[in-house]
Amino acid sequence: MRFVFASNNTHKLSEVREIMPEGIEILSLHDIGFDQEIEETGLTLSENSKIKAETVAEWLIKNDKSTLTDGVFADDTGLEIDALLGAPGVYTARWAERETGIHLPEMETYAANRQKALRELEGKTNRGAQFKTVITLLYLNSDTRVQVEGIVRGTITTEERGQSGFGYDPIFIPEGYDKTFGELPTEIKNNISHRAKALTELVKCL
Amino acid sequence: MRFVFASNNTHKLSEVREIMPEGIEILSLHDIGFDQEIEETGLTLSENSKIKAETVAEWLIKNDKSTLTDGVFADDTGLEIDALLGAPGVYTARWAERETGIHLPEMETYAANRQKALRELEGKTNRGAQFKTVITLLYLNSDTRVQVEGIVRGTITTEERGQSGFGYDPIFIPEGYDKTFGELPTEIKNNISHRAKALTELVKCL
Repeated sequence: MRFVFASNNTHKLSEVREIMPEGIEILSLHDIGFDQEIEETGLTLSENSKIKAETVAEWLIKNDKSTLTDGVFADDTGLEIDALLGAPGVYTARWAERETGIHLPEMETYAANRQKALRELEGKTNRGAQFKTVITLLYLNSDTRVQVEGIVRGTITTEERGQSGFGYDPIFIPEGYDKTFGELPTEIKNNISHRAKALTELVKCL
Repeated sequence: MRFVFASNNTHKLSEVREIMPEGIEILSLHDIGFDQEIEETGLTLSENSKIKAETVAEWLIKNDKSTLTDGVFADDTGLEIDALLGAPGVYTARWAERETGIHLPEMETYAANRQKALRELEGKTNRGAQFKTVITLLYLNSDTRVQVEGIVRGTITTEERGQSGFGYDPIFIPEGYDKTFGELPTEIKNNISHRAKALTELVKCL
């Protein structure tokens, strides 16, 4: 089977390809020639993942490319910090940008977001948080839709630790571990992460 | 495996039990001793199905009954009429009641809802509509959630036809057929219905 994963994020694509069982091929947006910007206007992770999958599915059908794939899936991931009542949530990827109005390159955006999280939690003892990934899967020839959600609980550190992973990984320690996602080997992260949990459920549904 | 289907509606329970493969046992709310009223306060079918499943899952855990089942799933179904911009949607089951303020017994509620639909569409040529079922599945020992959606397109008749099924079945003709869900044999309805489509997806994910 072959699915489009509605993303061009190389980190996410490699996470997804590593988790997929043999026989399932994953195409990126680049692979299918989709180069539009998708506006994530949803108010929830669930809505955003649905918007992304629907936009790409409709584009495939409109451009006579629906034979390229069995379906399209898209994810949206949020960090929900307990002491901030679930923020940044749906704004996770654009948290610092929403404050400053300045659009930075990817790596600098990640760094600015992490610094904002550490700043917002300065002096706070309640550092509980969770990563949540929602994935929406649409089949191109069927009136059904599947949505899966994976959550990993953890805590926010007081300083950055580790170089691997991306986004908020260097400041998030998953429950049951004493290292951040930025310090843990990729193989471990890919086994226990929110995205891994959601993807494992998704694979069962394919 | 054993799952709680968060419903006491005998029509739905028998639809669900007929579709489930062997080896999967379905418990009703009655079977587990849950007798509270669940308030469906969601603004979407998706939210309502999630609220129902979460309420029952939390109740099972709180009452030390989580060993009874592997998980809980709940559905919410809506009729979305094109000419009414998707109404009654999330209010499908309570459409007439919301207008009159009068709470009727089940069978009379069904009849009042059907009559309201026929009245609202009187003289309208655009009679397109769709049934949508959303099912949320929660596992009791896992931070994952699965949601599936099934849709069946069709048209609303100008008068009631057929006695089988329930709810709006006697005024809905599914695409590709010339009989209403109230006229079609249960076996056919259970193969092509919105709930069947959602359940078929769900079974793949179990």
